[in-house]
Amino acid sequence: MKAIVNISLKAGVLDSQGKAVHHALDALNFDGVTDVRVGKQIVLQLDETDATKAKESVIQMCEALLANTVIEDYEIELIS
Amino acid sequence: MKAIVNISLKAGVLDSQGKAVHHALDALNFDGVTDVRVGKQIVLQLDETDATKAKESVIQMCEALLANTVIEDYEIELIS
Repeated sequence: MKAIVNISLKAGVLDSQGKAVHHALDALNFDGVTDVRVGKQIVLQLDETDATKAKESVIQMCEALLANTVIEDYEIELIS
Repeated sequence: MKAIVNISLKAGVLDSQGKAVHHALDALNFDGVTDVRVGKQIVLQLDETDATKAKESVIQMCEALLANTVIEDYEIELIS
């Protein structure tokens, strides 16, 4: 089973990387971009075949290591 | 319109960040993880309302700035 974890900065947290990308897009004359946020996507290949157990396990991984829950949100998508 | 760009290293390209995360998960006794790949997720807020034009524009942004197409693949998802 594959788990895709999307980690993004919480709304209100300054995203300096996003601001830099936005500035660079402006400099390259890409108009019409009003906001850019940069996050991480972590793709995990798991032995677990049970979706409920896999999700529980990935939530624990997020809380313990993958995401900094003070400033980041995470979303988990499972693909069997 | 919102565009979500998922950028991942091509298969076969060494993902040192993924290896480090995998190692850390092992050290924290998360068993059953066979592979970890770490990529980027860039969320763009666009003025454009036409999906075809928005996608074209985002492809150009990926080719010019967002992705290093020598070693990275990108996927674009549009949300209106």
